[in-house]
Amino acid sequence: MTVEERLAALEARLQAAEDELAIMRLLASYGPLVDSGQSEAAAAMWIAGGTYDYSGGAVAHAPGGLIAAYEGPEHQGLIADGCSHLTAPPRITLLGDRAEALAYSYVARRRDGEWFLYRAAINRWQLVRTPAGWRIENRTNRLLEGTEDSYAVMREGSAV
Amino acid sequence: MTVEERLAALEARLQAAEDELAIMRLLASYGPLVDSGQSEAAAAMWIAGGTYDYSGGAVAHAPGGLIAAYEGPEHQGLIADGCSHLTAPPRITLLGDRAEALAYSYVARRRDGEWFLYRAAINRWQLVRTPAGWRIENRTNRLLEGTEDSYAVMREGSAV
Amino acid sequence: MTVEERLAALEARLQAAEDELAIMRLLASYGPLVDSGQSEAAAAMWIAGGTYDYSGGAVAHAPGGLIAAYEGPEHQGLIADGCSHLTAPPRITLLGDRAEALAYSYVARRRDGEWFLYRAAINRWQLVRTPAGWRIENRTNRLLEGTEDSYAVMREGSAV
Repeated sequence: MTVEERLAALEARLQAAEDELAIMRLLASYGPLVDSGQSEAAAAMWIAGGTYDYSGGAVAHAPGGLIAAYEGPEHQGLIADGCSHLTAPPRITLLGDRAEALAYSYVARRRDGEWFLYRAAINRWQLVRTPAGWRIENRTNRLLEGTEDSYAVMREGSAV
Repeated sequence: MTVEERLAALEARLQAAEDELAIMRLLASYGPLVDSGQSEAAAAMWIAGGTYDYSGGAVAHAPGGLIAAYEGPEHQGLIADGCSHLTAPPRITLLGDRAEALAYSYVARRRDGEWFLYRAAINRWQLVRTPAGWRIENRTNRLLEGTEDSYAVMREGSAV
Repeated sequence: MTVEERLAALEARLQAAEDELAIMRLLASYGPLVDSGQSEAAAAMWIAGGTYDYSGGAVAHAPGGLIAAYEGPEHQGLIADGCSHLTAPPRITLLGDRAEALAYSYVARRRDGEWFLYRAAINRWQLVRTPAGWRIENRTNRLLEGTEDSYAVMREGSAV
């Protein structure tokens, strides 16, 4: 390979590693935003018009529908009790200017001086590269209740 | 350094970063496979003849012994209840064409509308580079029961 | 760009990716050290004079104050029961020879044949590059009890 070819290969490979790290950072940003009431910043993780399709709720659209959910009584009750939205280590697949991630998420909620798992779910994120960095186009979340919808997210996300 | 030396150094360092990311991705793939009944795909994370030595079970060999475990009543009961096999962020050590990872794992299992930690364990993975990517040669798993066998995995894994 | 410029850009970008991976590895090393009684090795994750400011304790200084805490009855009781100090996937921000990380942490403790969340907290690490690698200058830890001090760590850590 020529120097030019080696430089071009290195630039492309490094971009991919940087993309993966940037997506990890994006996903790791979520919990501390929503658990401290930074609803607008959390919603800005999605592109405008992006969606969050979660168990127990209607599909929310970014940013307005997400902000409304984070400002609503269910979410505010979590914040008041003391909670964490934990995003587990993701399985990331890069697809050029798009990407997918698959990971469990948990809501640990305070009760009687300890914490319990109020929610446990599987999540699939469809992500897009934007001029401002990686953003979420859609997040699908299904509770782990032994039902087919959760297995489907795991299977489809694993196949990407 | 000459251009040739700088290119070679970059290529070697980038390979190491890619290896670490690839191992993270491999380990993050596990839960959604085993929790949705994809027993063969989960077992294919190991090389043929690779082992899974876990608390409460005999040493299982890949792929047959692992598939049998995932298809058995204990694991199928977990899937039916709703569960997640969570692999925590690993401490990865690269050793050329081999690598090690050390991380906690948890099984969150549904009960009475919430989830509890049915298992919590320390794990050490010994990994090998294959033409198909990084694979597991051995995984040792020990429950966190305050016993010496779990401390030994932590100490030995930390020393790599 | 000239070959020289492209090499220099690659070297700088790759260093940043390596820094992020090294910080992930450092943080992932913590649990197995403290949960197996390796008090000195855990304290050596901090620079000498570095601090750990945690809910429910006075500010501990490395290494002596940290070693004392890990050797004390509270921590030794955790080890004897069986526990894991889990550090969640961090949001890392590089700042040249300094860095910050923000992540949840949990202590899963054994009780009655299963594990419960004895602690759940938000953490902010301020890190420095040293000749021996990345080390902690300060770690601030606040329990998730629905109180302003925990929200403040989340907000301040998210703003870096």
